[in-house]
Amino acid sequence: MWVDDEHYRSLWVADDSWTIEIIDQTRLPHEFMIVSLVTLEHAIHAIKTMQVRGAPLIGITAAYGIGMAMRVDSSDAALESAIARLQATRPTASNLAWALEEMRQRLAPLQPEERINAAYRRARELVDHDIMTCKSIGAHGVELIRDIAKRKDGKPVNILTHCNAGWLATIDWGTALSPIYRAYEDEIPVHVWVDETRPRNQGAALTAWELGKHGIEHTVIVDNAGGHLMQLGLVDICIVGTDRTTAGGDVCNKIGTYLKALAAHDNGVPFFVALPSSTIDWSLESGADIPIEQRGSEEVSHVYGLTDDGAVGRVDVVAPGSEVVNPAFDVTPRHLVTGLITEQGICGASREELTKLFPVQAG
Amino acid sequence: MWVDDEHYRSLWVADDSWTIEIIDQTRLPHEFMIVSLVTLEHAIHAIKTMQVRGAPLIGITAAYGIGMAMRVDSSDAALESAIARLQATRPTASNLAWALEEMRQRLAPLQPEERINAAYRRARELVDHDIMTCKSIGAHGVELIRDIAKRKDGKPVNILTHCNAGWLATIDWGTALSPIYRAYEDEIPVHVWVDETRPRNQGAALTAWELGKHGIEHTVIVDNAGGHLMQLGLVDICIVGTDRTTAGGDVCNKIGTYLKALAAHDNGVPFFVALPSSTIDWSLESGADIPIEQRGSEEVSHVYGLTDDGAVGRVDVVAPGSEVVNPAFDVTPRHLVTGLITEQGICGASREELTKLFPVQAG
Repeated sequence: MWVDDEHYRSLWVADDSWTIEIIDQTRLPHEFMIVSLVTLEHAIHAIKTMQVRGAPLIGITAAYGIGMAMRVDSSDAALESAIARLQATRPTASNLAWALEEMRQRLAPLQPEERINAAYRRARELVDHDIMTCKSIGAHGVELIRDIAKRKDGKPVNILTHCNAGWLATIDWGTALSPIYRAYEDEIPVHVWVDETRPRNQGAALTAWELGKHGIEHTVIVDNAGGHLMQLGLVDICIVGTDRTTAGGDVCNKIGTYLKALAAHDNGVPFFVALPSSTIDWSLESGADIPIEQRGSEEVSHVYGLTDDGAVGRVDVVAPGSEVVNPAFDVTPRHLVTGLITEQGICGASREELTKLFPVQAG
Repeated sequence: MWVDDEHYRSLWVADDSWTIEIIDQTRLPHEFMIVSLVTLEHAIHAIKTMQVRGAPLIGITAAYGIGMAMRVDSSDAALESAIARLQATRPTASNLAWALEEMRQRLAPLQPEERINAAYRRARELVDHDIMTCKSIGAHGVELIRDIAKRKDGKPVNILTHCNAGWLATIDWGTALSPIYRAYEDEIPVHVWVDETRPRNQGAALTAWELGKHGIEHTVIVDNAGGHLMQLGLVDICIVGTDRTTAGGDVCNKIGTYLKALAAHDNGVPFFVALPSSTIDWSLESGADIPIEQRGSEEVSHVYGLTDDGAVGRVDVVAPGSEVVNPAFDVTPRHLVTGLITEQGICGASREELTKLFPVQAG
């Protein structure tokens, strides 16, 4: 997608063919900083500190992390150790496990000396696959927006999204934002309500930045405001991403998603979840069985942003001495989900419907 | 209530008998600063900038503001002008209109020269009335907590609250927090989930501060987290305040209250609203007719707190150039409200039930 006049992806291979370059997402929206990843430790650090985040991008970064590990030691033991260390970085997103399993299946049967090139080649395939998948999600999802536009009489379709499931969360296009970018290309008027998404403010910082840089109309709101806007009829559709969706159709996504799904349901607003099939956990039926990452209290107590001096800084917003907890995800039960937008098309949030679209994986 | 070893109220008359002293609530939790109000302009400024906030405290401050205006000019015209100017400060809370009407009824029939003393006397009566009312809300509401405690086997009763409806929002005791302070006095173990309450963070800054200073166990969470905690069974009851409740039982309160009410309903968690009857708007049936205050975008884009230098500062959290809107309240429809905790007892959220408790006002 566009950043001012340049086309960017969230991750790319540098000219040396080995170094991976990423946009440091902890610095946005106030600083656009590119960071080089050379070693497995760099990749682990980037995922843990959320320099890269978003389920698909975490998976791809981990895949390249395997390549980086192989350059140092391409033995069986080193491969398994790298997979285990990368897997331990973030517990909730299923794309991480998916990407690491893809790497294991490709590399394990090979001789150690073949593994470096094979790892980079496979990671590159996963990049291409991710871009195609996200583009396809956009092509399917835009039809929902087009249908709503028909009855809006030229007025913009109002779409509410939570957190960031844009190109920064993937390689390009995004998941939840892909139909929106496609609508913009197709000249369908859209306006996006961007949930701030405390505690890390990925909405106000990343989604708003992405949309602004690409030229798409949007308005930032606090997470508390979405229900009120739906009551007033100011939201035509909700589209969010997901970090893991069960085979039964329960959707695990950034904390607070469930509250917006409840409000959508209460106000008759369609609530859609956009996801690559790599996000589906075919081994789980119920969302209650998904491990929910508990993150540090500092993310809640301290808010980062631009100080009046023009530097990136932080402020402590919690009364001194108060306890804080920080669950990072919640589960939206399937009955609140109008449909899932996948690379194979749109379906209901149920095992039956998912199986129709993905018979091989479901089997 | 207690602030460390001293007993405080949110507002008091200084030794000169005319000056009103308040705790500047825009400085909490990091600075405890007392501000003197001497003129009508001071009172208007304090309400507008939210040095004082909370529906009952706004009403009392406005009442004293009338007294301050009378000291300069106690003519009929000055009385009406002061009432109009104070009424225009905040549109949503109904206590403001209630308190100003109380002042008009007391002062209008008097000779101008009698009005100064009468205004201060009436304001003082409203203070005493507010304290009695809030204490009574606590006495009724604590029975809900006591009942839950019976089946908790000595474990704390988990209460979720949104925004600040504690003693800082009233004169003493609070509305939503009054039953909690009373439970603490009665040695019922309680633990409070404190919603941060963006954009102004009255939960993280004021409720957490109040509870901490009084010695009550509590944990601050982002506004997104409450639904997830309810899904996990970690919330026994929600108690919130309100800025205006219609005769039909719809509850207008700080933006985001509606989302918590939806989650409570979805998870079978009782959702109670604590209010003095001065908060009831007997002229309205539906919450849809309540004017919702739209506040400045700066409250959303900038977060205030303690910088690493130890000073109170702010950070800009929104991508440059993005639009922002800031509706301050939302309406929770009556069917999501388990009950209303008033100074006369607990009742259902309906005209019929409210009329039983307040036959005179309802008539």
